[in-house]
Amino acid sequence: MNAFPALLAEIALIQDLRSAAALLDWDHQTYMPRNAAEDRASQLASLASVIHERETAPGYAKHLEAAEKEVADFPPDSLERCLVRVLKRNFEKESRVPASLVRELAETSANAHHAWAEARETSDFSLFAPFLERLLDLARRYAALFAPYRNICDPLLDNYEEGLTAQHLDPLFSGLQEKLVPLLRKIAASPQPDDSFLRENFDPAGQLRFSAEVLARMGYDFTRGRQDLSVHPFTASFGLNDVRITTRVQPDAPLSSLLSSVHEGGHALYELGIDKKLNRTPLANGASLGFHESQSRLWENLVARSLPFWECFFPRFREIFPGPLADADTAAVYRAINKVTPSLIRTEADEVTYNLHVMLRYEMEKELLNGTLSVKDAPDAWNRKSMEYLGIEPGKDSLGILQDIHWSMGSFGYFPTYALGTLLSAQIWQTAEKELGPLDADLRAGNFAPLLDFLRSRLHVHGAMFTPQETLRRVCGVTEIDPACFLGYLEKKYSALYGF
Amino acid sequence: MNAFPALLAEIALIQDLRSAAALLDWDHQTYMPRNAAEDRASQLASLASVIHERETAPGYAKHLEAAEKEVADFPPDSLERCLVRVLKRNFEKESRVPASLVRELAETSANAHHAWAEARETSDFSLFAPFLERLLDLARRYAALFAPYRNICDPLLDNYEEGLTAQHLDPLFSGLQEKLVPLLRKIAASPQPDDSFLRENFDPAGQLRFSAEVLARMGYDFTRGRQDLSVHPFTASFGLNDVRITTRVQPDAPLSSLLSSVHEGGHALYELGIDKKLNRTPLANGASLGFHESQSRLWENLVARSLPFWECFFPRFREIFPGPLADADTAAVYRAINKVTPSLIRTEADEVTYNLHVMLRYEMEKELLNGTLSVKDAPDAWNRKSMEYLGIEPGKDSLGILQDIHWSMGSFGYFPTYALGTLLSAQIWQTAEKELGPLDADLRAGNFAPLLDFLRSRLHVHGAMFTPQETLRRVCGVTEIDPACFLGYLEKKYSALYGF
Repeated sequence: MNAFPALLAEIALIQDLRSAAALLDWDHQTYMPRNAAEDRASQLASLASVIHERETAPGYAKHLEAAEKEVADFPPDSLERCLVRVLKRNFEKESRVPASLVRELAETSANAHHAWAEARETSDFSLFAPFLERLLDLARRYAALFAPYRNICDPLLDNYEEGLTAQHLDPLFSGLQEKLVPLLRKIAASPQPDDSFLRENFDPAGQLRFSAEVLARMGYDFTRGRQDLSVHPFTASFGLNDVRITTRVQPDAPLSSLLSSVHEGGHALYELGIDKKLNRTPLANGASLGFHESQSRLWENLVARSLPFWECFFPRFREIFPGPLADADTAAVYRAINKVTPSLIRTEADEVTYNLHVMLRYEMEKELLNGTLSVKDAPDAWNRKSMEYLGIEPGKDSLGILQDIHWSMGSFGYFPTYALGTLLSAQIWQTAEKELGPLDADLRAGNFAPLLDFLRSRLHVHGAMFTPQETLRRVCGVTEIDPACFLGYLEKKYSALYGF
Repeated sequence: MNAFPALLAEIALIQDLRSAAALLDWDHQTYMPRNAAEDRASQLASLASVIHERETAPGYAKHLEAAEKEVADFPPDSLERCLVRVLKRNFEKESRVPASLVRELAETSANAHHAWAEARETSDFSLFAPFLERLLDLARRYAALFAPYRNICDPLLDNYEEGLTAQHLDPLFSGLQEKLVPLLRKIAASPQPDDSFLRENFDPAGQLRFSAEVLARMGYDFTRGRQDLSVHPFTASFGLNDVRITTRVQPDAPLSSLLSSVHEGGHALYELGIDKKLNRTPLANGASLGFHESQSRLWENLVARSLPFWECFFPRFREIFPGPLADADTAAVYRAINKVTPSLIRTEADEVTYNLHVMLRYEMEKELLNGTLSVKDAPDAWNRKSMEYLGIEPGKDSLGILQDIHWSMGSFGYFPTYALGTLLSAQIWQTAEKELGPLDADLRAGNFAPLLDFLRSRLHVHGAMFTPQETLRRVCGVTEIDPACFLGYLEKKYSALYGF
């Protein structure tokens, strides 16, 4: 056996290059000085080129085949077999993409990121429009390499969630919408909780301290990660011993920064829980973006928006902010953090409306990619759909079409994974409670270890060894996402909160 | 002509990879979480491998030759000709180094860096000793690739200062020592200024604010750079539009952080002043490390340790620190910042003793590399030499052999460039004053533009286009470093300060 070890060495090197690119991107979004943007785009493009070149090098396919033969007798769920499966899949995709397109994608998206940030700051869509046009064109050219397909979104969806297609997604989403709209109507007809006390002045340093304490209690290891500030919160991983998160802090929205920290913390816990044997391979990753989001959404919603969580943390929260919280209590924070109201910003949406934000974006993506909607008309289309899905309209594009970072990164087909993750989070939670018993008492005691242990041993440890479907089977014992779990959870929680 | 443009594209890509490696290293020293060290070492080693692989790829030599022919008729001082010269020199060196040694050097030095940091923190040389042993062995193996040589240090010196050899350096250093020792004796026999007021409590945030203001006034562009904290101050460049500096801050040593900021600021101004046409080529660099140090030392010593500088900045300095500076005045700060006293830490040494610190290290390096001194005996040897050169002995290794980062990075032969830079700084200053007239009035007014313009147009703009010798000719009109300039400057300044 020598092809396989040689393959391992080569992919470790490639994975190191990926980690380097991830660090360049992290720095881009956190500390990079403004005028370095263009050079940074070149650097990211060069790394992407080198990675692509090595992954599609002449001889690589044969090398992969030889390695596959060497490990053919290994168990199907061994690291070796799983790795070969993933490498073959990646090669099959990568080898269709010409080097020039790889470079163009990397360079354009790095430059577009800066145009987007400026456009968002000044709420001027025209600054971003030409980049969006180019990025859509590149995405179409990319998708075309995978023809035939039923929907141009399919090859893009498959990049984030193996096997996902519009054909699968559309009925899932319309079924979900059908149930969410009446629930939302019932809530809207009920009296709303008061959350005005959360719009006082909460010192940013105190917010960051509180988040860090919650993260540490969740099990986030600050010797293998750190938290910084960025315009759009994100998680970045540079190997399994360095998984960092970012957040943003506004004085009049302390829960927004906390929830974003917990959300990214959930992503980070996933990566930090992956078996270290998978480090420096493409398996050192979540099973899919849907599964990744299942972890961030689970911690954000099922943990940090729960009553027992606030029973645990409210005293400390008030200790840090005695002024604004003088008259508040646990129940008031619990009600406020779960206030359901159609809002403009996805990342700050409540659990009930959240998926509607995702559907809006997915609909936009389909129309933009299929060419039935032009970039010029996109802001108006966004506003119209916002009215249709949420009943409100953004007054300016920074609160509408410019709010999300994803398209500026050329990431089309990414949004649906947020909804899948949300559905999965409820399904995984149900399984955890079925096996561990109700988790309320643990949460109330700030004891997250049993939950984290369950997630680690059932999901995290496997990294990207298995397909999303097989991963779901291993975690929950089923092979299909079941929206009923999520809908049941919503129904129960919000009927109690809103008294219907 | 097509070989040359293709070559340009390839070296731009390689330079991008170098910038990525530099960012990994910057992060390593600033923000990286502790437990990521081992993975970071792999990542740096992988980047070094890929860079080396491309720079010594089969066909590269022929490609270089073809490109050289294409530009043979260009003027000798054209970008094209200069670039080909540097690429040929680099190839000649790189192609002698086996890939395995490249990887081993990168990996060992990244790991050694962490061992050194821990050893320094705990003042426990034994933690670093095995790494130093390995690094010396690697350096010897590296040097052996360039045999024959008169001294094993020569191939290492040449990496930092083209053409520099021990044969050239030794008489320069002994001549310098001959003059410095009597000067130091005269100073020691004179009454010492009082600098106790600088050991009060100076708020670190205020120190950083003051440094940033001074840097901005010097012309450092914070849209193309930033300042962070690190154990050992350094400058890092990720292309010509992103040149960052770091500093360290101690409450009881406000001038230490200021001088380190100005020193690194001098390095950064050099890189930021390089012709943007040279970006993404190996010419986007200083002419040599000696020239790089000439810039940092010029700003640190001839500017920030001068009386007119403090006439300009003292009022602001006292405004930020009204408490500790209540009874101080400009003259007191000027005297204190120029207090000459044998001390243990090189980076905080005064102008007179500084070069003695360098000589000590260079002597150590020669003996360690030649094998006449063992790693085991090195701490004692350091202490003995410290007594010999400076008249004092470090009480612990963190103040002795462990104080500098360089050996932990595998950088042997680097230290002498600090002394060369110091000599050059005085020579360049003399030329600047010869052409611009005395600079005192400008400095007093905080007007650094005429000085910076001179440095930019005469030195910075050329980057690494020319050899150190040719660069010196272009800047000062001579081809040899003349220690008399520096010695004359010292004699004049310190006889006035100490009244002899």
